[in-house]
Formats: sequence, structure tokens, C-alpha cells
Amino acid sequence: MLDFEYSIPTKIFFGQKKIGKIGPEIKKYAARVLLVYGKVSIKKIGLYDKLIKVLKNSNITYKELTGIKPNPRITNVRKGIKLCRAHSLELILAVGGGSVIDCAKAIAAGFYYNSDPWDFFSKKAQIEKALPIGVVLTLAATGSEMNGFSVISNQETQEKLAAGSEVLRPRFSFLDPSCTFTVSKKHTAAGVVDIYSHVLEQYFCLTEGTFIQDKLAEAILETCIKYGPIALREPKNYPARANLMWASSLALNGLLTYGKIGDWSTHYIEHQISAVYDLTHGVGLAILTPYWMEYVLDKKTLPKFVEYARKVWSIDEADEFAAAKEGIEKTRDFFNRLGMPKTLSEVGVEDKRLVDMAKKITSFGPVGSFRELKEQDVLKILKAAL
Amino acid sequence: MLDFEYSIPTKIFFGQKKIGKIGPEIKKYAARVLLVYGKVSIKKIGLYDKLIKVLKNSNITYKELTGIKPNPRITNVRKGIKLCRAHSLELILAVGGGSVIDCAKAIAAGFYYNSDPWDFFSKKAQIEKALPIGVVLTLAATGSEMNGFSVISNQETQEKLAAGSEVLRPRFSFLDPSCTFTVSKKHTAAGVVDIYSHVLEQYFCLTEGTFIQDKLAEAILETCIKYGPIALREPKNYPARANLMWASSLALNGLLTYGKIGDWSTHYIEHQISAVYDLTHGVGLAILTPYWMEYVLDKKTLPKFVEYARKVWSIDEADEFAAAKEGIEKTRDFFNRLGMPKTLSEVGVEDKRLVDMAKKITSFGPVGSFRELKEQDVLKILKAAL
Repeated sequence: MLDFEYSIPTKIFFGQKKIGKIGPEIKKYAARVLLVYGKVSIKKIGLYDKLIKVLKNSNITYKELTGIKPNPRITNVRKGIKLCRAHSLELILAVGGGSVIDCAKAIAAGFYYNSDPWDFFSKKAQIEKALPIGVVLTLAATGSEMNGFSVISNQETQEKLAAGSEVLRPRFSFLDPSCTFTVSKKHTAAGVVDIYSHVLEQYFCLTEGTFIQDKLAEAILETCIKYGPIALREPKNYPARANLMWASSLALNGLLTYGKIGDWSTHYIEHQISAVYDLTHGVGLAILTPYWMEYVLDKKTLPKFVEYARKVWSIDEADEFAAAKEGIEKTRDFFNRLGMPKTLSEVGVEDKRLVDMAKKITSFGPVGSFRELKEQDVLKILKAAL
Repeated sequence: MLDFEYSIPTKIFFGQKKIGKIGPEIKKYAARVLLVYGKVSIKKIGLYDKLIKVLKNSNITYKELTGIKPNPRITNVRKGIKLCRAHSLELILAVGGGSVIDCAKAIAAGFYYNSDPWDFFSKKAQIEKALPIGVVLTLAATGSEMNGFSVISNQETQEKLAAGSEVLRPRFSFLDPSCTFTVSKKHTAAGVVDIYSHVLEQYFCLTEGTFIQDKLAEAILETCIKYGPIALREPKNYPARANLMWASSLALNGLLTYGKIGDWSTHYIEHQISAVYDLTHGVGLAILTPYWMEYVLDKKTLPKFVEYARKVWSIDEADEFAAAKEGIEKTRDFFNRLGMPKTLSEVGVEDKRLVDMAKKITSFGPVGSFRELKEQDVLKILKAAL
């Protein structure tokens, strides 16, 4: 186990009747907020009206930034920063899923930065200060509600890049599983894959002596395997939605990665595909993950694959390579049973773009640590997944 | 799953080379601290000297309160409060295991209270404010390094009682697994039992839909089962000490209990035995737990016992009651393999004291929620365990 410094200060209000408490929480930091959200869905489920009522009752004034879409754009971040500066707003309240939260985080950081906020993502600048961020979550997927990461897309440069800082951790997040009852089958499934993938990116690692982290990781994987299919079959099943929502936060708040090193190759690769094709993140991960697994399986990585196969999929095949491969196939099957496609062609990715994408993915150097991938490795994975 | 509000703000510095960072951490809150510790052990392992050096280099002045023993006494708490008031101390730094930390917490709360600090434990007063608390941990056991509980003994009244408040959560805790290399076999084993018992108290619960919490709980149990025997065999095995130390914090920081209701009967019963016989907490828990399990096993509680037997002990016996009983026997065996005694008689508990103890244990009403225990139930468990 590696040394680590643990800090997860985000407060979580979990349940169906917590929203009334958001007034006092906001008041600790601000009297004027920027409300960031997508558009229709939070109005459809009545969340918007409830929230506005609470804000008014608490004498909190607000400006709105709406129309945030999946793969949130740097253009929206710039807009948000202008709004905050023009109206001296003091807290960013994100109401939505990961895209909305990530956009809110980039605004919060950009507020204190004198140049273009894309600098944080292109690694020209470090995030050191940010406005406080609050969250009302409506999708179980990215874990952004409890961590310090933000992923933003730039259409001009066709890039989708991540930035992170402890100052981006939300001060509080409201998690009401019933807010996800109306999430479509496709996005429910993509969310489950996203959670599952976050865990795998941390689970597949060569650091030794991380038994406790690995068992905790398996707990979250089993939660996805149990409740993913139930949430698809019964969208209003509260225990399913509750377990998945809590899984999304715990999968990426740091708990599983403290003491070890994550891999994250599949995420790097997927981000580039999303940047070009505006794909739903979880869909891209579902396609790529089994191909990544097949590519990185070798003598050195075998023991971890065997552990995964035996513990998560109860595979008792004695031959270790065969067991590992069975585990990979089980993973692919699970994603397919959730309705995810199997190949990049199915979602419109073209062969002619792969070379360029592989180059961009490795533009900051090789990706991954479980097995380091250079440009040619990435290209091979992309071609296999096509 | 029940609604919950999650807040675990304690910062953790985990590893062998972190202690230098304690200066700046303390400085955030204080320039004058009360150093609370046991006596010999932290000097033997060189921790005392290292710490004093860091304090001096950081211009932090300190007073000392030493001689804190297992089952820490309210008399020491009173002494500590006087010291803090006399010297305007601003932070309590606990260097030790759960007893030292619990004593530090009671001092921190008592500082702001105008009457006797025992009032917090006898439920005459609520803890609302406390001096900040910092921890340097030297024993993997109680989880006090990351939670808001304190357990204090009163020799005059022969009581050992708990009090809790969010304000008692340490601001920071330094966890260096190598500080536990010299912990005796007995206390290593008792610590493992304590961790294991904390998980069971939260695992055995009738709340439905808490799959994710239960899988996380099983992860910690498996960590104890794997590394407990290794730590006994090889006291300087770093992965074993590291996994156990991190398990101790995660077992009782709230993670496993948010969304459900804990039982805690075994702890209530053990505390009373410790209060009278000054027993090592983990030893008492090791004896009592299997008897508690046998007593509360019935039709209603059966499913949880079966889950426990199958998941934690891989028992595939088809008959559910038989499987449950096998799981209980495996638990008893595990504790015995760690060198724990099997009966209360072995540690000197006398039959004639049991009636009085059962009365005292239930003096605030029945204990437990997995199965509620009245005075007569508690007496039966005590008699069985004798």
C-alpha cells in the first residue's frame, strides 16, 4: 500500500426529503448563486420548482445558466464566468448530472483566473482557488458530486480533457435517488457502466498490499451488477436507484484509490472519441473496456485479472489465462445485457479517424499505469474495438 | 436504505513519512496544545522524540497529560480540562490508541462545559462545542481516530459509557502502520476483534436495501480475516499492519452505517463488563459476540446470518439454520485462533455479578435493534458466556 493523504470533506444529504435543507447549507457560503442546469428534465420532475421555492424562502438570489449538454463545452464555462463576475455571485449550484457539475466546477475555478479557463484543461495553468460549489444530483454516473475533477470539451480543438483540484470538491451534494426514476434506459445503463468503469480504472493496478481497497472496489462492482439490470427493468425501484446513486459517489470520491495508483487508459481513450463524435461517455466506456482488458492481459497483469474473475464473477476455471478471459467476456456480456453496443462502428466511429485519435490521446505522453500504452498500443485497441 | 447525512471531514495522513506534516496541520488551529498519551510505548518506538522535535520546530508549545490507561478514566478527563484552562491550550493532540483519543475528546468537550464532564456520558448534557482534536495513532482498533465517539469509565459508579458528537471528530489523524509493529500479540488480536465487532454491529441490521453498505462491510471483515493472523505471526509485516490500520478507521467512521441502523448490543454488554473488571475491550467482545449471535438467531434474523455465513465464510451448507450456525462457529474459531478466550469465567468474571450487570446495561432501556434485548435477555447471554 502506498502512502496517502485522505480528505473527502463533501457533505452528503441522501434521501427523498432533504432538499429543504439546502437553504441553510448555501447560506454558509453565499447569498447570491449561479444556478447551472441542463434544461427540460429538472423542470419535468418538479425539482426546479421545489428548488426555486427553497431559494426564495431563504432569501438567496440567483442567476441561471441553462442548456448544459452532455460533454459540456468550454463556451458555456466562459459564459458562466461572465455571469458570476457581472453579478458578484458567490456559489455555483449545479443541478443535474456529471456534465452540469463539471461545467459548474470549471466556472468556479475560472472565476478567479485572469485568462481563458481552457488553460486548466490544456495544462497551461493549475487550479488553485475556486468559488464554493453545491450539487443537486439527478444522475448516478460520474461521481463528480463528491470529487475534485472536471471534464470539459472544446469543439474548436476537438478535445475533451480533465482538470482536477481539491478546491473543486463540492461543499455539499444533495442525492435524492427518486430524482433518477425518470432517467432513460440508455442513460441509466450508461451511468452504471461509468460507475463500473471508474472502479475498474482503480482496481486494475500493480500496487501490492492493497487488499482492503480491492475488496471495497469489488463491493461497488457487485452493486452495479446487482442493481443495474433492476433499475432498467423497474425504473422506480428505490433500493436499486439508491444503491446505484451511492455507488456512483463512492466509486470516485477517492476511497478506492487512496494507497494505490489508478490506470485511467480507457477514460483517456474514450474522452477523445467523445470529443470527436459527441458520444455518451458510458457508451464509449462499455465498448472500449473489454478490448482494453484483452489488450493489456499478459503475464504481469494476469493475477489481477484472475482475482477479478474469481471474486466478481465467481469463475472457478482452474487455468488462469482461461479464467481471466472468461472474466473479460462476462464484463462484455454484462454491458451488452444493459443494452450497450459492442463496437465503435455501431456508434459511427470511422476507421480513418483512428490514427489521429491515437496521436491526440497520447499527446501528453503514454497513458495508463497498469500497463503503459503508447500511440501504437492505443491505435491497436481502437482498431480492435472498431 | 434509510435517508442519511454524511460528513467525514477528518483528514488522514497515512504512511511512514508523514509526521513532519503535523506542524502545519496543528498551526491551522493552535499554537498551544495539550499532548495526551499513555506512557512508555510512544517513547520506546521513538515517536515521542520525533513529535516533540516537530512541535519545537513549528513553535508550538505544549503541556503533557500522561498515564492514560485502557478504559480511560473520567478523573484523567477532569485533569486535562484543568490543564487546558490553566494554560489556555487550544488543541488536544492524542498520541496513542482509542483510550488516549477518547480521553482527549472528552477533555476537548469538557473544556467548554461549566459542570462535570461525566454529565456527557450519563446523558445529563449534550456535547455541543469542543476544542479541535488531532491524533497520532499507535493502535489499529477503535476507529476513534476518524469518528465523533468517546467512551469513558467511571470507577466510582462502575460505569463505562459512550458519548458522541460531530464536533468530536478529529480534524486530522496521522496513521503510520509501522507505529504498530511493536504492539503485543494480545493487543494486536484484541484490536482485530474490535474492528471486526464494529463491522458486525452495523452489518447485523434489519434495514432493507442496504446492499452496498453490506458489501463494504464484508470487505472490512475479509480484511480482518486475512491480515489478523498475519500480523500476529509477523508483527512487522507492513501490508498487514497497513490494511488493519485503515480497516480500523473505515469500520467506524460512519461509512458502514449511513443508510441503516446499527445494533451495538454486544458493545453495551462488554462496556459494563470492562467497567467492573477493567477487561481489554476486544477480549470481552471476542467472548461475547458468538453468544450474542446464538441468542439473537431466529426466523426474523436468519437471512442476515445466512448472508454472513455464505459471503464471509464461504459456507455452502444448504440448510439455512445450519449454515447460520456454522457461520457463528467460524466466528468463534477465528477469535480463538487469534488467541482470545472463549468464556467470561476465563477472564475472572463472577456469576454473582451478572444480575447487577444486566440491570445496569439496560438502565437506559433495552439495547440493540437487530433484536431488542431486555434485562432478562442480557442476563441469559451473560450466563451463556460465563
